[in-house]
Parts: sequence; structure tokens; C-alpha cells
Amino acid sequence: MKINVLFTPIIADELYFTGKTTVVIDVLRASTSIVAALQNGAKEIVPVATVEFAVKVSGGMFGGQTLLCGERNSKKIEGFALGNSPLEYSQEIVAGKSIILFTTNGTKAIVKAKFSSALFICSFTNISALAKQLAMRDKDIEIQCAGNQNNFSLEDTVCAGKLISELEKINCELYLSDSAKAALVLSKSLGKNMHKMLSETEHGKMLLENGFAEDINYCGKLNISSSVPYLTGNVIKLFPEIDPSLSDIKENIKS
Amino acid sequence: MKINVLFTPIIADELYFTGKTTVVIDVLRASTSIVAALQNGAKEIVPVATVEFAVKVSGGMFGGQTLLCGERNSKKIEGFALGNSPLEYSQEIVAGKSIILFTTNGTKAIVKAKFSSALFICSFTNISALAKQLAMRDKDIEIQCAGNQNNFSLEDTVCAGKLISELEKINCELYLSDSAKAALVLSKSLGKNMHKMLSETEHGKMLLENGFAEDINYCGKLNISSSVPYLTGNVIKLFPEIDPSLSDIKENIKS
Repeated sequence: MKINVLFTPIIADELYFTGKTTVVIDVLRASTSIVAALQNGAKEIVPVATVEFAVKVSGGMFGGQTLLCGERNSKKIEGFALGNSPLEYSQEIVAGKSIILFTTNGTKAIVKAKFSSALFICSFTNISALAKQLAMRDKDIEIQCAGNQNNFSLEDTVCAGKLISELEKINCELYLSDSAKAALVLSKSLGKNMHKMLSETEHGKMLLENGFAEDINYCGKLNISSSVPYLTGNVIKLFPEIDPSLSDIKENIKS
Repeated sequence: MKINVLFTPIIADELYFTGKTTVVIDVLRASTSIVAALQNGAKEIVPVATVEFAVKVSGGMFGGQTLLCGERNSKKIEGFALGNSPLEYSQEIVAGKSIILFTTNGTKAIVKAKFSSALFICSFTNISALAKQLAMRDKDIEIQCAGNQNNFSLEDTVCAGKLISELEKINCELYLSDSAKAALVLSKSLGKNMHKMLSETEHGKMLLENGFAEDINYCGKLNISSSVPYLTGNVIKLFPEIDPSLSDIKENIKS
């Protein structure tokens, strides 16, 4: 199993992902929020790359069953139901709902990688569950870090490294690119004290300054969820609620 | 002193560098060759971004005083005097010569960052000498890794980390971006056995397969040169052969 890590979305274009197995990581906070929302019973997440498209999609869906959510520069967008804090996505609020989500980095990275043959969402909260699915699939993996406005983001890279480390632990035979090796080294060096690491990254410091200390705590919790979100069509659902079009995933499950 | 590391040239556009102090690193092998050539008495290096432009520039210069050099996919370009091995740039061959240099990653990265107010070239072979100059300048630094075809390159990043480590040692007060922190951690983890590290990177393995084992040995030698190459106008010279237009550098030297 070859693993490559793309540190920011600017490195690869949309077609690069065609036919690949991709994992998208945006620890602070989109991927952590997506894992939390699905864990808490959200029907699906619709990731969008622009605020305008979020509003448009929202207009075409049933009122009451959808929540328009997202942030710009860490803050909830005016008129939206929720921001991008995983703590907002509680069972009471999201169960049964379709969530239309726009975030500065995470949902853009997901939309960019939409031509992947399978696309999974990873945060610190679901690494172990996702690693099991990836090991079962046994395909080469591209890990796309959402980064920070097209710059490198340390927390996403440490999370990528922890996912690689988990795949190593369950005895996958791994061939690591330079970037995957770097992510593994960084996760071993910096991934011991998650709260400290997250608090000292550029994005973490910005969230702390904006009053999101509890988000930092939550986003650093390892493996508190068994949710494995994946993209099917244009929406993210819980794996393995299988879509018939994802035939290769079906085959893996059957075998 | 703020330090940021750009892992590949695709992250920033040309204007990003305007007015900045930039260090370009391409360990395998352009920056190592540039350091070696100037150390061995080359008059100047003219970095170019295309083979066509290399040939054009070469046509406009005095025959006998110029050497047209470079590689494509690690191999010397047909009709060129030298390839991109630092071992080719001996005193006998390069002393007094203007070298027109095209390489797949390194010279492109240098040309892209040409609007920097000061641009220095770094390899493992000249880290200590360069760090002293940078400490004296005391300006924020962008370290541009040349990378590998716009992908992350581990050896360039470890070199960036070693440069940061050297600046730490000489008591510079450093503020590190996420990428600069990552480079520092990687250099501390992977920079102990340079030959092993270089031999195991993607680019290093490719060079070994193509018969460049001696280049790997040479490129991993720490601080064997006191050369500090910098870009002045369109050419790279030895610092401090000062160009009058670089007034801020002159002032630093005087003070």
C-alpha cells in the first residue's frame, strides 16, 4: 500500500484524484465536525466550496430538514444555523438533518478531490476506525491535508502521520513517499501531547484567541468515534451505508 | 526573526517574494552545485527557468568565458558542457567562467523568487556560513525548498531545518511558522545520518539508480564551504561581492 500526503490542496488539481482512494483531513475543524455530526445522527453532509453555492443548495432542499452551516475566518457566517465547532453538532440539533457545510479550507479540499473512487474524512477522533476500513480496502492512499489558506498546517500533518502509524500497527505493508515519511516522523515527535501541539499551531493559536478553547480540547481527542464518513455522489454519509455506485467498496465489504 | 518554509515552489507566486529575504534550497543538486562552483572560482551563475532561455542567454555571451550547464530528469542535457553534479564544477573547469544553469527544480525556484530584496542559496555544504550572514542581517526569512516537480522533498526540508537550528544556536530570537517548526523537527529526527537520509528520499533513490552515488556523498557533507551565493540582478555571485543596488545589504555590512 503506497501512501502519499499532500500538505495543501494547491499541490494537486481535481483530475489528480481520479480513481484514487483519498483521505481528507482538516483537524481544526471541518473534518472533526463532520465526524461528530454523523456520529450524532445527521443524515448527510453536503460539502460546498463557496458560500454562494451553500445558499443555493439550501434553497433547493426541504426546510426544516436541512441546516445551513459553516464559517469564514473561524466565525459562523451570518444567517447560518451553525458554525464549524464540532461541539455545536449535538444529537438534539443534527439528528436526521441534511447539513450543508462551507468552511474556509476543509470543504474546499473535499470538493476538489471529488473525482476520487473513494473519499474518506479523517480527524483525530476517528483515526482507528478509518484505519481499519483502509486496511480492509488495501488500496494506495492519497492523504489530502486541508491546510490553512493553501499553506502547510501542522495539525493536519500530525493527524496524517497518526493515520499512517495506525496502518503500520495493523500490519499493512506500507511504501511511504517523502511527505508520508515526514508526516509519520512529525506525528511521533509532536503527537504525544495533543493539546499542547494543537494549542501551538498557527490555526490553534488563532482559535484560542477567538474563544474556541473547548474546540481545541475536543479536536485533540483520539478515537472517541467509530464514524467513518465517506463521500458518495455529492454528499458525505456514514460508511458503510453503501451506495450501489461504489461497486469497488461493495466488493471489499463482501469479500 | 520570523521564519517560514515553503515546501514547494507552487505555494507562492512571484510577487509573494517582493521585498523579502529568501533562501532557496535544492540539496539534490542545484544549490550544492552552485555553492561548489562559486567556491571553485566561477565568476557567476546565471540561473534560468527554461532550456530554451539557457541557449538564448548562452548565445549572447562571449564564447570561452561561459559554460552552458544543466540537467533534465537528472541527466546532462545534450550539447551542454556540464550536468548538475557538484563534482563536475571543479576549479580547473569553472574558475573565471560564467555558468548558465538550468535544472528541473532548483533554478526554476530561484527565478520565481527573483523579486526578493535579498536571495541566498543554501545547501548542506554551506549552512553555517549562510546562517552567520542571515543572523547579521536580522530580517524575517522565507525558505523556499525547490522540492521535486512541485512535490515535497524531504532532503530540502531537512536542510531548511538545519539552517533554522543553526540560527537557534547563534542565539537568534526565532518565531517559527508551522512549516518552519516541522522542518526543525524533521532535521533533528532525520539529520543525524545524512547519507542514510539522502539515500532513502525519493530523489536520492532516483540518483542512486542513475549512478550518482558520489553526488549523494558530496551533497550530504555539512559545512565544507564558506561560500554564500546570492542573487544580484539576474546572476548569482559570492556574497559579499557587493552590488551597489543592494543597499540594505551594504548597510548591514558597514554596521
